[in-house]
Amino acid sequence: MLTQDQLLVKTLGPCRIPSPLQGSKRVVFANENNRVRYHDKIGSDVPMDEADLSFEEAGPRPMVFFEPARTTAAIVTCGGLSPGLNNVIRAVYSELKHNYGVSRILGIRDGYQGLNPAVGQAPIELTREFVEDIDKLGGTVLGTSRGPQQPPVVVDFLKNQGIDILFCIGGDGTQRGAHAISEEIDRRGLPISVIGIPKTIDNDIPFVWMTFGYQTSLQEAERILRGAHVEAKGALNGIAVVKLMGRHAGFIAAGASIASDEANFVLVPEVPFPLDGDEGLLEMLRHRMQRRGHALIVVAEGAGQHLAADPEANVQRDVSGNVRFEDIGVFLCHRIKNYFTGIGVPVSVKYIDPSYVIRSVPANTWDRILANQMGRFAAHAGMAGRTDTLIGLLHNELIHVPLTTVTSHKRQLDLQSDLWMAVLSATGQPRWCG
Amino acid sequence: MLTQDQLLVKTLGPCRIPSPLQGSKRVVFANENNRVRYHDKIGSDVPMDEADLSFEEAGPRPMVFFEPARTTAAIVTCGGLSPGLNNVIRAVYSELKHNYGVSRILGIRDGYQGLNPAVGQAPIELTREFVEDIDKLGGTVLGTSRGPQQPPVVVDFLKNQGIDILFCIGGDGTQRGAHAISEEIDRRGLPISVIGIPKTIDNDIPFVWMTFGYQTSLQEAERILRGAHVEAKGALNGIAVVKLMGRHAGFIAAGASIASDEANFVLVPEVPFPLDGDEGLLEMLRHRMQRRGHALIVVAEGAGQHLAADPEANVQRDVSGNVRFEDIGVFLCHRIKNYFTGIGVPVSVKYIDPSYVIRSVPANTWDRILANQMGRFAAHAGMAGRTDTLIGLLHNELIHVPLTTVTSHKRQLDLQSDLWMAVLSATGQPRWCG
Amino acid sequence: MLTQDQLLVKTLGPCRIPSPLQGSKRVVFANENNRVRYHDKIGSDVPMDEADLSFEEAGPRPMVFFEPARTTAAIVTCGGLSPGLNNVIRAVYSELKHNYGVSRILGIRDGYQGLNPAVGQAPIELTREFVEDIDKLGGTVLGTSRGPQQPPVVVDFLKNQGIDILFCIGGDGTQRGAHAISEEIDRRGLPISVIGIPKTIDNDIPFVWMTFGYQTSLQEAERILRGAHVEAKGALNGIAVVKLMGRHAGFIAAGASIASDEANFVLVPEVPFPLDGDEGLLEMLRHRMQRRGHALIVVAEGAGQHLAADPEANVQRDVSGNVRFEDIGVFLCHRIKNYFTGIGVPVSVKYIDPSYVIRSVPANTWDRILANQMGRFAAHAGMAGRTDTLIGLLHNELIHVPLTTVTSHKRQLDLQSDLWMAVLSATGQPRWCG
Amino acid sequence: MLTQDQLLVKTLGPCRIPSPLQGSKRVVFANENNRVRYHDKIGSDVPMDEADLSFEEAGPRPMVFFEPARTTAAIVTCGGLSPGLNNVIRAVYSELKHNYGVSRILGIRDGYQGLNPAVGQAPIELTREFVEDIDKLGGTVLGTSRGPQQPPVVVDFLKNQGIDILFCIGGDGTQRGAHAISEEIDRRGLPISVIGIPKTIDNDIPFVWMTFGYQTSLQEAERILRGAHVEAKGALNGIAVVKLMGRHAGFIAAGASIASDEANFVLVPEVPFPLDGDEGLLEMLRHRMQRRGHALIVVAEGAGQHLAADPEANVQRDVSGNVRFEDIGVFLCHRIKNYFTGIGVPVSVKYIDPSYVIRSVPANTWDRILANQMGRFAAHAGMAGRTDTLIGLLHNELIHVPLTTVTSHKRQLDLQSDLWMAVLSATGQPRWCG
Repeated sequence: MLTQDQLLVKTLGPCRIPSPLQGSKRVVFANENNRVRYHDKIGSDVPMDEADLSFEEAGPRPMVFFEPARTTAAIVTCGGLSPGLNNVIRAVYSELKHNYGVSRILGIRDGYQGLNPAVGQAPIELTREFVEDIDKLGGTVLGTSRGPQQPPVVVDFLKNQGIDILFCIGGDGTQRGAHAISEEIDRRGLPISVIGIPKTIDNDIPFVWMTFGYQTSLQEAERILRGAHVEAKGALNGIAVVKLMGRHAGFIAAGASIASDEANFVLVPEVPFPLDGDEGLLEMLRHRMQRRGHALIVVAEGAGQHLAADPEANVQRDVSGNVRFEDIGVFLCHRIKNYFTGIGVPVSVKYIDPSYVIRSVPANTWDRILANQMGRFAAHAGMAGRTDTLIGLLHNELIHVPLTTVTSHKRQLDLQSDLWMAVLSATGQPRWCG
Repeated sequence: MLTQDQLLVKTLGPCRIPSPLQGSKRVVFANENNRVRYHDKIGSDVPMDEADLSFEEAGPRPMVFFEPARTTAAIVTCGGLSPGLNNVIRAVYSELKHNYGVSRILGIRDGYQGLNPAVGQAPIELTREFVEDIDKLGGTVLGTSRGPQQPPVVVDFLKNQGIDILFCIGGDGTQRGAHAISEEIDRRGLPISVIGIPKTIDNDIPFVWMTFGYQTSLQEAERILRGAHVEAKGALNGIAVVKLMGRHAGFIAAGASIASDEANFVLVPEVPFPLDGDEGLLEMLRHRMQRRGHALIVVAEGAGQHLAADPEANVQRDVSGNVRFEDIGVFLCHRIKNYFTGIGVPVSVKYIDPSYVIRSVPANTWDRILANQMGRFAAHAGMAGRTDTLIGLLHNELIHVPLTTVTSHKRQLDLQSDLWMAVLSATGQPRWCG
Repeated sequence: MLTQDQLLVKTLGPCRIPSPLQGSKRVVFANENNRVRYHDKIGSDVPMDEADLSFEEAGPRPMVFFEPARTTAAIVTCGGLSPGLNNVIRAVYSELKHNYGVSRILGIRDGYQGLNPAVGQAPIELTREFVEDIDKLGGTVLGTSRGPQQPPVVVDFLKNQGIDILFCIGGDGTQRGAHAISEEIDRRGLPISVIGIPKTIDNDIPFVWMTFGYQTSLQEAERILRGAHVEAKGALNGIAVVKLMGRHAGFIAAGASIASDEANFVLVPEVPFPLDGDEGLLEMLRHRMQRRGHALIVVAEGAGQHLAADPEANVQRDVSGNVRFEDIGVFLCHRIKNYFTGIGVPVSVKYIDPSYVIRSVPANTWDRILANQMGRFAAHAGMAGRTDTLIGLLHNELIHVPLTTVTSHKRQLDLQSDLWMAVLSATGQPRWCG
Repeated sequence: MLTQDQLLVKTLGPCRIPSPLQGSKRVVFANENNRVRYHDKIGSDVPMDEADLSFEEAGPRPMVFFEPARTTAAIVTCGGLSPGLNNVIRAVYSELKHNYGVSRILGIRDGYQGLNPAVGQAPIELTREFVEDIDKLGGTVLGTSRGPQQPPVVVDFLKNQGIDILFCIGGDGTQRGAHAISEEIDRRGLPISVIGIPKTIDNDIPFVWMTFGYQTSLQEAERILRGAHVEAKGALNGIAVVKLMGRHAGFIAAGASIASDEANFVLVPEVPFPLDGDEGLLEMLRHRMQRRGHALIVVAEGAGQHLAADPEANVQRDVSGNVRFEDIGVFLCHRIKNYFTGIGVPVSVKYIDPSYVIRSVPANTWDRILANQMGRFAAHAGMAGRTDTLIGLLHNELIHVPLTTVTSHKRQLDLQSDLWMAVLSATGQPRWCG
């Protein structure tokens, strides 16, 4: 159960410097009296002790902690690609440089590796020319890598480089790393701010209703599903199986399937669907094929872990010893082919695995706006001395969330939500649980 | 000031028939105990007497008013085109036909005109084949027209055709028309439900945070702005002026400009910007040209009405005798050219007016999802006997709003909002008011 | 060596009926005096005995063989999907119906299977409503299947259905099937025309410089390569391997790589590239990684057959007993990973296999034009009583080619051509042969 | 009548330096024995005295005129924007730098203006970083301007900057300017090569079957026509009028209309269509509206000059005193509205003028390939000492054409061609001439 204490945001100290934004007459400053409710509903759906929880609003403050002309900021992008990374970089740069007048903004190379001089390349100083057209490119112009670096090494680096604010763009693991850096800074009593900007194409970070990159990935995924449906219809007894991203959460599979409105089964990590039996996928699929002659199945990469004990499952043991599917899509295709062979019905199964194709495209319009807003509000948070803090998004309001609270769990599909119900309405598939 | 009474939704009577959706085990029914808060913030930004206002949740009910097998529904699309119309038609059809088992669903031809047999074509009965691929097409397969028809004529038609539920997809005017029809039904004591589905590419319907078609229009508008920026940069002292949709509200101009991140001035109906003087557009533009050699100006079609008295304004008098601009974009280009000629600076002004190009495309992924949800929830509202009611969207929750309340005013840009502030941050233009 | 005799086109008999197109004053009729040269060059590159070869021009004739009002035509689509199929169907329909006034045009279901009443569905009669928007859809609205049917069975069907002209849209195998049907018709002395329309996404049909679907596939493939390059650059020592279509010919791999201008190695069936050794792919790749830190490899699905003897190759034996790769892309990734592990260089290899994603999209602008032209000129050929004939395309002139000549061999990349030289220029890869 | 003499290409002198491309083993050198035929047909369509005309093949030569390590090249982009300009810049750079090893490649700023130090900015030296991602951007990164500069001034500049090869990317006027520069160079006896690369979105340069940018413009225009058709169908008695580019030639209007397959009238400069009378546009349009209730009219901007005497025409006198239409689209809409008002038929006319929107987008796949080839072959021509020469494209073969011959006339639609016949077939409009 969440408590109000867990929503308390850390600051480096009092803000004593008038924000340069005061002069521009362009800005509505965040009002510290206002807070954003966690729940926007009233009634029995809302747990009683959460009814009044609220978050600090993100946004510019009239007084700031850092003196812009003497401030150095640094931006790092970590983990897998997601559309919008370059847009966030450009937005943080623009807000700090053009609006606050921050003197020096560095781009860290190749993820956290660039914060460790022993293994990484030196940072580059960002300029107007450098960022000018990066918003039209996919990927990240700064490069990326996976995994953390030792916090003491990183904090030495920040000190040596004179970095005052570090913006960490990344997912779950990245934000855990950012928190560790922040703790080391705290231990040493340094006035360095660490601001997290949530990046996950899977859309599975808590307190972030929608991450940048998610809508772009839906758009690309919808294109794929449209083609897959054409393939299924084009062939005699065609069955198309499309594997989409989503290791822990089925947001992409669900959203793309509603948008496509042509999927017949959507398999997500949150729902342990049965393969066999009267209510099982195979039997339902048989019905569908009989009735309509073609089918489209969408499966999130993390779905079906409950089937790992299946003798035909192509599983592998991960570093922690857990048994995991190597590829749920391959397994499904295999079982589907066997099943229809068994009942003497010839089918043509086409397997489509488009992940890399989806995540490397430039951000679409929506994600450009979202990335822009997140980048600019991250800049505001850093300048105001917030630290160990993530920029969240709750029913369209940007908020501040402590990194510890963010990284305490993963967000998953709510099986009571309108989103999931829309999947069930559109596909006609059984609920299978809940 | 809004009161709770104004949020009270009308119904045709008690729901006595168990919903066929109960059998499917797929549905989470709306819980009448739960309501959606009007304000999702706490604090001084929220007017005291509005703090506790709440709306009825939209969604399926366990008991319904109409018996599906004996129900006839009809769908009508009115007013200007907006991406997603066909998707709503398809979603209403699918929910009613495949999930509720409604027997007969009609498509009304050419807007409200098709509800008047004296002037309109007969309705067509919708089928699976008819709706199958309409979601990939722009426009509306049912046709559209502007303006209302006499309510008594319409209600006669509804009775004669045996229509139980009428879905009216349209904007402000359409919903006013729907309300008038609903009142006539009420007067006659007929059990006919009228459900409004909000359609406005301008995104200016109150209690609808985002209408379908809006994101698609931003996407198309962003493409245009990208090209316009290329044009401005490509020419010597190039100034591109792009007119975007928005008669009363600058949502498209604002959203597209943030997404583009290349606009230098964004002119909207909500802000009476000065043309002349030190803080005026022309002087600011001169600075920009001096500094950077090119500029991109975005103007909403309804902007600048305060300038209608300008002797060079190309105004016209509308039916009510109000003076209105014929074309604010043409006027601006004219004034800009004169100004720079006057100060002896040669500029190359390019005027781009892309409206028709924007609104006739098929819905993008986001709008496909939104249209799908709105269509399905409208179907739920109709089946549950709600009437004189619009499907609204408040911080991502679908709600029921009485038509009278919806049509009482237009939604405009909140000049204190993050959205508008993002425009100011991205352009660096002055606040000019507020 | 090609002879002029092989270019002689068959006809059903003399054209005695004035073409209805004569009345329209819109048409320039093909002039039988004019022929299209096989070679458009003079000089040593042209084999002496081919220097004067020429083809019959395609196009409308002033006199036709079939009386439109009494003619029944049928269209069949066979083999794998290719963008533009629906556009060809629509164009054949429009030309026959609207311009010639042909009374009855049938759509055969599911490829050649629909020509065998024992296994196929009955044909459907095409109408204006049916074809109206099919040009916006991928795939084929008529369905498709692989493999031929017995010519006697097919010809019985054509007779029974009263079909006068059969349009066979498909590749190599389909045209071989069309020729077999044509021979059976000839044997029986029936006045039925069989016209082939070339469809191959691989662009490997001789005497067809460019097939519809090819440009669309390049466009989709280029998007994929753009993303793959982003992926390779985004990762530390990233190597992206993209498998593109092309069983016998590398046209898609070559064209997409030039368009992308970011590929570093392009592997095609026509070039037996070495893997090992100083000039081998692996060593060249090592150089590239050392110099630039990332690489993009494009491989056609039919490339590398000369490596099937490699002990690590995942080969399979096909029906004729030939050893073939199961998946050259998987094999390459495997060998690349092993190689870099062997020399102690950590690389991140990403494998992308997008075929289904590419071929199921709607035709792009170019292919819409090409499919339109091919469909209309096929209609002209059929009406003029040409038979056993394919619509070809030689340096932008549409021509008639006997089916026997077309199916005598496959077209491959000319390794002396500007196209392949452009690949070598853009990648810097070695010639490896020739 | 064209003569073989007019096809004789100028060179600076004998090629004495072995091409560095000889070492790469990647290149097939152009064989001087081979030439490209002007006509690829035999028969009465070919004028007798043109039957044997032939062009020099473009391509790399085994021996070159300039020593790469001591060569300076410069690239200039002139006139209006066209998709692919940046791709040509990148291709010329890549071929010269990476393949030939040319030491210094300059980018001239703002068209010919940058060749005149009195008014222009200094050139910039191109680098790998500079050109890396420019192929994804519309417009030209070098800027552009209209009009020539004095040849003596330009040649002084070339000498002072040590420029050996000047690549002039532009249309008719640009190539005339390039020829003038070339003549001044000749007069002074300087060993400076001037190579023209044809750029015209209108596709109206002779001996260039297809210019880069043309296919992209068709693609964008087709999108516009698709939307316009939706608009026309969406409204009651809707008539959409779309003005497309094409001052002297209707290639874009024709190509886009075939691709769209939804246009009903296509008006081009080559056809003096009548407005009034039984065969006139207005009467034909009335028929169409009666039969189908909506219409789509495509008009090239240069169409209808024969109507300038119409009393309602909005004409202007150009610098030479010729009367020209200010806007043929506006005039047409005006006349159409008046006509239907006159006969008492209410219509809804929508005018769409998308030019800027079309020409500023990045090049599509086809144009990327074409621009790449043209850029690389221009580099070959320059290195081989060709001068006063344009890179042409004849039935898919790249050729060398003397600039004087190129600029002697404009290319127009051949009203006997398959292209124009396809327009007539698809629209059903009358021939109106020829």
